[in-house]
Amino acid sequence: MAIDPVKLDRLAQVAVKVGLNLQEGQDLLLTAPAEALPLVRRIAAHAYAAGAGVVTPILSDPQVTLARYAHARDESFDSAPDWLFEGMAKAFDANTARLAIAGDDPLMLSSADPAKVARANRAQSRAYKPALKKIAGFDINWNIVSYPNPDWARRVFPDLPEEEAVARLADAIFAASRVEGDDPVAAWATHNAQLHARCAWLDGQAFRSLHFTGPGTDLTVGLADGHRWQGGASVARNGITCNPNIPTEEVFTTPHALRVDGHVSATKPLSHQGTLIEDIRVTFAGGAITEAHASRGQDVLRQLIDTDDGARRLGEVALVPHSSPISASGLLFLNTLYDENAACHIALGQCYAKCFHGDPTPEQIQAQGGNSSLIHVDWMIGSDQVDIDGIKPDGERVAVFRKGEWAQAV
Amino acid sequence: MAIDPVKLDRLAQVAVKVGLNLQEGQDLLLTAPAEALPLVRRIAAHAYAAGAGVVTPILSDPQVTLARYAHARDESFDSAPDWLFEGMAKAFDANTARLAIAGDDPLMLSSADPAKVARANRAQSRAYKPALKKIAGFDINWNIVSYPNPDWARRVFPDLPEEEAVARLADAIFAASRVEGDDPVAAWATHNAQLHARCAWLDGQAFRSLHFTGPGTDLTVGLADGHRWQGGASVARNGITCNPNIPTEEVFTTPHALRVDGHVSATKPLSHQGTLIEDIRVTFAGGAITEAHASRGQDVLRQLIDTDDGARRLGEVALVPHSSPISASGLLFLNTLYDENAACHIALGQCYAKCFHGDPTPEQIQAQGGNSSLIHVDWMIGSDQVDIDGIKPDGERVAVFRKGEWAQAV
Repeated sequence: MAIDPVKLDRLAQVAVKVGLNLQEGQDLLLTAPAEALPLVRRIAAHAYAAGAGVVTPILSDPQVTLARYAHARDESFDSAPDWLFEGMAKAFDANTARLAIAGDDPLMLSSADPAKVARANRAQSRAYKPALKKIAGFDINWNIVSYPNPDWARRVFPDLPEEEAVARLADAIFAASRVEGDDPVAAWATHNAQLHARCAWLDGQAFRSLHFTGPGTDLTVGLADGHRWQGGASVARNGITCNPNIPTEEVFTTPHALRVDGHVSATKPLSHQGTLIEDIRVTFAGGAITEAHASRGQDVLRQLIDTDDGARRLGEVALVPHSSPISASGLLFLNTLYDENAACHIALGQCYAKCFHGDPTPEQIQAQGGNSSLIHVDWMIGSDQVDIDGIKPDGERVAVFRKGEWAQAV
Repeated sequence: MAIDPVKLDRLAQVAVKVGLNLQEGQDLLLTAPAEALPLVRRIAAHAYAAGAGVVTPILSDPQVTLARYAHARDESFDSAPDWLFEGMAKAFDANTARLAIAGDDPLMLSSADPAKVARANRAQSRAYKPALKKIAGFDINWNIVSYPNPDWARRVFPDLPEEEAVARLADAIFAASRVEGDDPVAAWATHNAQLHARCAWLDGQAFRSLHFTGPGTDLTVGLADGHRWQGGASVARNGITCNPNIPTEEVFTTPHALRVDGHVSATKPLSHQGTLIEDIRVTFAGGAITEAHASRGQDVLRQLIDTDDGARRLGEVALVPHSSPISASGLLFLNTLYDENAACHIALGQCYAKCFHGDPTPEQIQAQGGNSSLIHVDWMIGSDQVDIDGIKPDGERVAVFRKGEWAQAV
């Protein structure tokens, strides 16, 4: 019932060889919850075997975070370790690759004061911005994988004993991360080719907008001028081809920050930095959210939207068929990396520079409709009841999704 | 047989209230092995309760370090995460307090290639220098305490089952750290007063040098001009009175970098960054080591001495009675923080600026005989067979230690 060490090692191999495609001599900065140490250790071994310079793990611990909410004076929640985030930005400037292991309890902060959570997140986002820009701008090869922490497993399988819950979550992670076969690197090459074919078709259509319809949803998402579809492996600005997200099932691009209109209902709960936000319903006009409701976590949602002007506009739209392996698992992972790959989704906040043709400057990106913000938060709007039409500049409509599945073969 | 949670909590309290004397609003940077998380968590709670801004743990893991020696390409051993150490220096510039939890396996690197260990240490020392200067220069309040890691406990009690070894080491740490009683903060106030009385007596004597004699030892250690004796709580440059070392039994000052002559035999093995160096015998002339031998780890010793010019000269001399509680425990901790407090010792490398009267500049410190180096490595030369005379500028001799004990009452 333990975590399969062979598959855990393959996950580390995939993170280093596919996710990062770590180059000889490249340093690696690795963030992870301390409980993920078994995976951290395997990643360090694969990274050094691949010729890494120095591997630097920065480990976090939920109990330390919770001690802050339990004991800290009020002023604490407006501060962040700037020196650490500035240092990370410097590391990325020096071509250090970045690997994050996800796996924290998705409801860790659910009993903390939401106002303090929002302030601490804002302070952290501000401090992290220079480093995040280099990741969002794809300056370097980066990757995120997951580890089945007991605290997370308990949330996904609340009725199982802890050991069984961890083993089940581990199996789901291994399946979604395509490390079940003997040659996971080859499995990823095949998968990447399929995603690339979808992107080529969408780029060829050159839609002006996408129209989502379904229960509680009638949303037109304008696409940024010169947008480009991305999915699977792509090339970072440092020239290295990598797979930032493992797992990944999505193809995605940049919406137009001023051309999103209508209303949309989330199809899955959103776990945002330790709080669960359920039944999100929002209305957009001229690109911005004008109304936002949730049956749970509404305060956190509204504080999130109020982070800055760009926090109420879209930075990403992504298409995922309802038949994706993660959706087929039937699990709610309470983790965006997984749940976003089970359904079509949109993200509030910062857009990705790589989702434009021709490597535009930040000023050009803004002029073409790219959004900027301290945040980037994905939430799920797809299901087997959602249809999507692509609308071309001349008004022609093309069926893109029907009942949650691709409407066209590629 | 587990680690007593009440005493562990008191150790965290002593680290924060006595060791650091953490101030309201002050940030805390905490380095620790990941296995010390139970203590990290209690320290975070006490730090936030004391009004800390942000507590940032930087956790290390021996398996990640060992993965490097097992798998890394040769060039790796000349690099270090400069961005992290630069960041630490910045944090200290912003008055962040520094707490280190010791507890790694003292023999962690004993089967690694000594040449690679030396290169990695040199690269790390170079990167760490700006931050270490602020600690050695006592710019900020800092503290080091210990946690009974299983890997360490196994080395101290090789014949006991792991759980029993950890419990025994925990008890020894709690006793040495004076957290056995209900009011450990008061116990530390009494202990500090006693150490301060010893320093006052030694400062009053104003010795020009100390003469150590014992089996295999006849060493004259000249003292720096304007040297000051330190021990117990002292005031950092940021104005905060703290206890850098917990435990601490020593009083110490700065030798003269050019006036150390004779030969000396270590009385305990030295555990240096994962390697055990045994039976050290060295000869000094004009302040510098001219010959160095060891029955084990001689290569590591010689590479250490070759780090830079200051690495072969002394930066500290410290007096500890043989009857100190740590010595009385009869244990060899294989950890300098403990073993140095069981015996008189000297340190190769960087001197402490606080061991001078009148707050001199770095140039003045050098002119007065203070040593500078990338390293600071203590090793034990005291035992119940060692005598020490203090020699005054006019040649008068005063008995300081006889058979390892203070010769004078204060």
